[in-house]
Amino acid sequence: MKEHDIKLDHEREQRIGFDEAIYSAGKSVAQLEAIIAHALEARAPRLFTRLDGFKFEALDSRCRTALDFDPVSRTAFLGERRRKAAASRVAIVTGGSSDMSVAREAARTLEYYGQGSLHIPDVGVAGIWRLLERVEDIRPMRVVIAVAGMEGALPSVLGGLVPGVVIALPTSVGYGVSEGGRVALHSALASCAPGLLTVNIDNGYGAACAALRILR
Amino acid sequence: MKEHDIKLDHEREQRIGFDEAIYSAGKSVAQLEAIIAHALEARAPRLFTRLDGFKFEALDSRCRTALDFDPVSRTAFLGERRRKAAASRVAIVTGGSSDMSVAREAARTLEYYGQGSLHIPDVGVAGIWRLLERVEDIRPMRVVIAVAGMEGALPSVLGGLVPGVVIALPTSVGYGVSEGGRVALHSALASCAPGLLTVNIDNGYGAACAALRILR
Amino acid sequence: MKEHDIKLDHEREQRIGFDEAIYSAGKSVAQLEAIIAHALEARAPRLFTRLDGFKFEALDSRCRTALDFDPVSRTAFLGERRRKAAASRVAIVTGGSSDMSVAREAARTLEYYGQGSLHIPDVGVAGIWRLLERVEDIRPMRVVIAVAGMEGALPSVLGGLVPGVVIALPTSVGYGVSEGGRVALHSALASCAPGLLTVNIDNGYGAACAALRILR
Amino acid sequence: MKEHDIKLDHEREQRIGFDEAIYSAGKSVAQLEAIIAHALEARAPRLFTRLDGFKFEALDSRCRTALDFDPVSRTAFLGERRRKAAASRVAIVTGGSSDMSVAREAARTLEYYGQGSLHIPDVGVAGIWRLLERVEDIRPMRVVIAVAGMEGALPSVLGGLVPGVVIALPTSVGYGVSEGGRVALHSALASCAPGLLTVNIDNGYGAACAALRILR
Amino acid sequence: MKEHDIKLDHEREQRIGFDEAIYSAGKSVAQLEAIIAHALEARAPRLFTRLDGFKFEALDSRCRTALDFDPVSRTAFLGERRRKAAASRVAIVTGGSSDMSVAREAARTLEYYGQGSLHIPDVGVAGIWRLLERVEDIRPMRVVIAVAGMEGALPSVLGGLVPGVVIALPTSVGYGVSEGGRVALHSALASCAPGLLTVNIDNGYGAACAALRILR
Amino acid sequence: MKEHDIKLDHEREQRIGFDEAIYSAGKSVAQLEAIIAHALEARAPRLFTRLDGFKFEALDSRCRTALDFDPVSRTAFLGERRRKAAASRVAIVTGGSSDMSVAREAARTLEYYGQGSLHIPDVGVAGIWRLLERVEDIRPMRVVIAVAGMEGALPSVLGGLVPGVVIALPTSVGYGVSEGGRVALHSALASCAPGLLTVNIDNGYGAACAALRILR
Amino acid sequence: MKEHDIKLDHEREQRIGFDEAIYSAGKSVAQLEAIIAHALEARAPRLFTRLDGFKFEALDSRCRTALDFDPVSRTAFLGERRRKAAASRVAIVTGGSSDMSVAREAARTLEYYGQGSLHIPDVGVAGIWRLLERVEDIRPMRVVIAVAGMEGALPSVLGGLVPGVVIALPTSVGYGVSEGGRVALHSALASCAPGLLTVNIDNGYGAACAALRILR
Amino acid sequence: MKEHDIKLDHEREQRIGFDEAIYSAGKSVAQLEAIIAHALEARAPRLFTRLDGFKFEALDSRCRTALDFDPVSRTAFLGERRRKAAASRVAIVTGGSSDMSVAREAARTLEYYGQGSLHIPDVGVAGIWRLLERVEDIRPMRVVIAVAGMEGALPSVLGGLVPGVVIALPTSVGYGVSEGGRVALHSALASCAPGLLTVNIDNGYGAACAALRILR
Repeated sequence: MKEHDIKLDHEREQRIGFDEAIYSAGKSVAQLEAIIAHALEARAPRLFTRLDGFKFEALDSRCRTALDFDPVSRTAFLGERRRKAAASRVAIVTGGSSDMSVAREAARTLEYYGQGSLHIPDVGVAGIWRLLERVEDIRPMRVVIAVAGMEGALPSVLGGLVPGVVIALPTSVGYGVSEGGRVALHSALASCAPGLLTVNIDNGYGAACAALRILR
Repeated sequence: MKEHDIKLDHEREQRIGFDEAIYSAGKSVAQLEAIIAHALEARAPRLFTRLDGFKFEALDSRCRTALDFDPVSRTAFLGERRRKAAASRVAIVTGGSSDMSVAREAARTLEYYGQGSLHIPDVGVAGIWRLLERVEDIRPMRVVIAVAGMEGALPSVLGGLVPGVVIALPTSVGYGVSEGGRVALHSALASCAPGLLTVNIDNGYGAACAALRILR
Repeated sequence: MKEHDIKLDHEREQRIGFDEAIYSAGKSVAQLEAIIAHALEARAPRLFTRLDGFKFEALDSRCRTALDFDPVSRTAFLGERRRKAAASRVAIVTGGSSDMSVAREAARTLEYYGQGSLHIPDVGVAGIWRLLERVEDIRPMRVVIAVAGMEGALPSVLGGLVPGVVIALPTSVGYGVSEGGRVALHSALASCAPGLLTVNIDNGYGAACAALRILR
Repeated sequence: MKEHDIKLDHEREQRIGFDEAIYSAGKSVAQLEAIIAHALEARAPRLFTRLDGFKFEALDSRCRTALDFDPVSRTAFLGERRRKAAASRVAIVTGGSSDMSVAREAARTLEYYGQGSLHIPDVGVAGIWRLLERVEDIRPMRVVIAVAGMEGALPSVLGGLVPGVVIALPTSVGYGVSEGGRVALHSALASCAPGLLTVNIDNGYGAACAALRILR
Repeated sequence: MKEHDIKLDHEREQRIGFDEAIYSAGKSVAQLEAIIAHALEARAPRLFTRLDGFKFEALDSRCRTALDFDPVSRTAFLGERRRKAAASRVAIVTGGSSDMSVAREAARTLEYYGQGSLHIPDVGVAGIWRLLERVEDIRPMRVVIAVAGMEGALPSVLGGLVPGVVIALPTSVGYGVSEGGRVALHSALASCAPGLLTVNIDNGYGAACAALRILR
Repeated sequence: MKEHDIKLDHEREQRIGFDEAIYSAGKSVAQLEAIIAHALEARAPRLFTRLDGFKFEALDSRCRTALDFDPVSRTAFLGERRRKAAASRVAIVTGGSSDMSVAREAARTLEYYGQGSLHIPDVGVAGIWRLLERVEDIRPMRVVIAVAGMEGALPSVLGGLVPGVVIALPTSVGYGVSEGGRVALHSALASCAPGLLTVNIDNGYGAACAALRILR
Repeated sequence: MKEHDIKLDHEREQRIGFDEAIYSAGKSVAQLEAIIAHALEARAPRLFTRLDGFKFEALDSRCRTALDFDPVSRTAFLGERRRKAAASRVAIVTGGSSDMSVAREAARTLEYYGQGSLHIPDVGVAGIWRLLERVEDIRPMRVVIAVAGMEGALPSVLGGLVPGVVIALPTSVGYGVSEGGRVALHSALASCAPGLLTVNIDNGYGAACAALRILR
Repeated sequence: MKEHDIKLDHEREQRIGFDEAIYSAGKSVAQLEAIIAHALEARAPRLFTRLDGFKFEALDSRCRTALDFDPVSRTAFLGERRRKAAASRVAIVTGGSSDMSVAREAARTLEYYGQGSLHIPDVGVAGIWRLLERVEDIRPMRVVIAVAGMEGALPSVLGGLVPGVVIALPTSVGYGVSEGGRVALHSALASCAPGLLTVNIDNGYGAACAALRILR
């Protein structure tokens, strides 16, 4: 059993339409460098998620140069980007500025697959009028990714306001009972708004992939 | 140790302004009959909570006659009611008709202490416009009791719309992750609306007592 | 505060494209009869969910006659059905026969809104070959509702096999650690299959509404 | 989507009587500096919460000078303070010296809004006589904020001793089963003292805002 | 493997000073009848716990006659009682009348082993003066069993008032967050009163056995 | 979607050496009768688990006659039994008589597949000498199934005493913190005895199947 | 509200026989120095618990000199020790060497109050013979403190072997399901050994105080 | 009570066939050095688990030289290795490269006891075809250790594909609901694959010991 024993899933794109993203959190620098070298050789594009700044800095310079790294969302692109879709069909709606990192993981994943998105910031339900002012911008969207931590009521309110698909993206922002994001997750699951969908806490990548499946 | 060994707390009203309510859930029919007999003799009024219909029916006829029983809220009054306050200063706002039993426990407790209340039904956040239509009725209230099960977003939205005291009264209505009311409770506690207050799940009696403390 | 104080949400269909379904679990027989009477008068169709057999039998005969009741899924239709869509674009895939009640709540909700569905039964992952034999039937579907209790691995496997939208519908089937459905829910949320979406445990109605939002 | 995309809620004060406090825990130094610059320009006062010492030290010197920072409570004031209310109507009662940080967040929030408070320290229930000696000082208060970690019995005892509004403010002080503050929170929610109210664990800001709503 | 395969632990009394009590909850009527027949033959005394009324009624008449059954505590004695200790050294202090069943299981177990006890009823902490009035009766006791449900603050307060051994006996009385007794248990474990000891929820038998070990 | 849509897994025996057992808990009487009819026709043997007495009684008489039903373990055999292995290599060790139902599900499953077992009853760790007296009977066994509820210490002690494979089979016997069997399960998982293995709570069927895989 | 506002509980010793120990975990260096200065002046002895090495090193030199500090147990004594009891009546029994820190907190607390103790190390139940070899040393003890992490079976086994008082002292040693000590705590609470008592996880101080109450 | 008081379990190998492994996580450097010195003197081989790199570096040079240390699995061997079994009968199957550390703890433990193993990497169920390609390599194995974090579906799928013993080894790899490994553990326990066995989260050592017991 060797540390570099990595077998990427090359059939994935053909079967389900996504190449394999590299979840970097559990991988060593050596494993990541091996993956990057292999991708550069194969001229294959790659999306890296959960790549924190310290680990990025520890990569050798050839790897660092090859990556388009974004520290806020902890994502990196390797290789050429796909052409961006002309018109946006996805809105990313956030409750507060603390949700930015996760929201941006979603936006960057969409961008990697050539899909633009509209960002509607700071419309948490404690000031519902801010959300109501933007409803007409959100209504025409086919997919709305509703990013919220703490009590996580934003997806429920949106689910009752717009006819498109609403994906709740709960975040781990919060303290006390909401520490770790379970309250935001459970609020979305328990919502009385019909047809709300949910992904795991802080899973911006997953919310974006779901949006892409819907838009196909 | 005898089953009828019950020592009521007669100093309570003098110290904190409430007589002792009789939490009937854990008491036997024999214990309840002893308490009623004692109160009738002392000509003392009494509020009974969590008195379910089967237990009420099992009381002897003298006890049944003495009580003003409401099966929906499972409350009963013994003795003369206090005079009702002229103008209402408390709103009870409910998300759905399944929350009625708990909301009514709050309303009946207020009534027992002579305080009226305004009921605003069926304004759950999945149809936020229903709530917005009623905001001007709710704004002047000193206390708003926001009753909600499932994802429990109603108190958060109200906390951002009105300047009065908002008391979240979470209910055990729900299934899956929201079974038992924890999600509604946690949503209220984790709310980003400033100054939201919370009582235990299904504790209509407690929410009403808190309102009474505030109105003093 | 009166027991019959019910305010239905008539704007809902116009805003989000669904009329308000009647969640019958927390409603009394009297409340349900009032809703049915009102709907009959308004000639408005209605979908009832979580209507158990005993409560249905307790309705007056006029109400019972007016409803198309299905005891397995505990759903009822009131009024004329919408015309069924010609070709099916939704698959409902179930792990075992114990998941039938929840799967059927999804199928009946789709039917109420005029959408057919294809049922693929008994393809739990402990016998993965049964699922593989049916993959080619499932691949062309735009939406796959994957119904599973116990360890809930079915949605993850499906998410890696087909390019359409996969909605995990966890069920409360199970015992020991899986009692109540949390394991199946968490398996879906934690899945490494990209873009898997989830609804609450036993929420067949919600999974169907999500499918309808996607198909619009 | 840009890191500095922040939209403050300027209508909040007009609607509910509070300006928007800046929850600093989830914000970057760059975001905080942008908010401070904006507030200085607008000559708007601001309250910052959860601003830890390291983050404060990392702000540029203009920002640091502009803030009245308190490291114990991790709060900062920007701009002129409101005039302090002449007579105190709020008591902050603490169980032990470990609860000081949270108690002080409450006191500083009250101070920001011009409301003084009386501190009653070290009256945990394991030495109930210390509390009883102070009861006559606490009884005349309109609002009592009872701060307690570990088993959190202080609010229950107070709720039975005084007629004013008692707000339980549970803290995350403790270890073993009480680590994180859940025991203190649950004790307050489950209390048999009538009319006890609760806020989230460590939410000194929320307890103070609730007191301000009550005192209006 | 046969249903009647039961092997009682005859060495137990010699090793630890208790004969084996019969936990009746998980046993069938047939198993209980076999145990009683065996004990009658051996002229061995026996204590039965968790024997509910229905199961007692289902025993054959010889068994029913042989048992001294108490329905409130669900305990039964078989055989002659030991002589009662002259002076009482154990107090059983209860918060409310709903805790009676569990308190009585403790009292009956003590009685089975010849130890009397003093009952102090209805001294829950929401009316702390009731407890303070009785402190001088409790102080001389070597062991105090403090029985409490809901928020379970009684043992903590007692632990700070008396020098004897305080055993918290949490009960499952409560609703919402305190349903099942976890809050009362955790309050006792997290108590800041030095040297508080705890047994499992509703374990009156265990609290009494602990008292007996202490008194040896 | 029809209630009788059941697709049994006929390839299972060939792949993994077990035919498909019928988990009866989630199946209706109609579904069970269909399965039995099908098996009788195919002359295929079948094992039914979690078949409670009421459901068995509700089957039609042809089905009842065809089944060898055991009410204690809630199992039934259909068809001829396999020849029993001459010598026993499996011990089933139980902590108390309340664990009998689960232990017997394991014994009956072994019997269905022709494997005998030795039962060692009532050797819970609170009387460790009872276990020590039997160690020499258990040591030669290849597989030891250790059945325990409550604190579940039996598997740990056994894992340190014998060289064979020890499978912990936790049961849901218990109350308070051990209600539902989580404590027994977690004790087995957390054991410091090297190489202890675990199955789900009350999963006698699974423990037996594991033993069979080991003995192959 | 000032950081140094500390009110020690001087009546505690007189009421319950313990002076107030200083729980150092939540206190700042400044608070600890103030307490030490005050004690030195009053010539009062003091016990400090949860004082970690870094915090001790940060105290000024006068404070450091005044304390008898033990880094393993994180305890410190201030002032003269009481005379040690001649004969030992307490055993501290540990499962493994990882439990040493907690066991020593108990031993040091006993020592502070003049009570010696006998240490029986490394007798975890996975090698039950090690415990059995020492049983005759443990049997005569009036109090046995059984320290165990992971699956925590040691107290149950001891409770069945000796007639004295057995206090379970669960530790947070473990990983996976036993991380944080809940499994060890729950095993002790759920034990079928009659009369086992428990304190909070890692609460060596509490176990020792309980022993002292028992020995009075 | 001294820090170096360590009593190793020398009878363990004779009773259950394993010498005592040294769980290094809770031990100080001083304790580890004492154990190594003792083993060198006794010429006894030893396996160390959970020995992190920093602690290894802190050992004195004689100890470091004596150990064959592997930083990825955090294991070390002391003394001569046993001869390796000629043919491999154990497969270690991993879901992703993040599971490598735990998988290697299992492989190294097998190696310490002279048992080789076959590693099948990167066959997570989101790309089920990767697993299916390798099934014929896995089928002949007597024991399959299935290592998986996140949703942990791999053991269930394997349990339905191969006739050998399948041991689920859940890992703490994951975030959101799967943080800490509970989802992977529960998926294995709740699996509908017959005869799946489980060890604690991240317990590579335990899985290997179980395999060794099976292979005897």
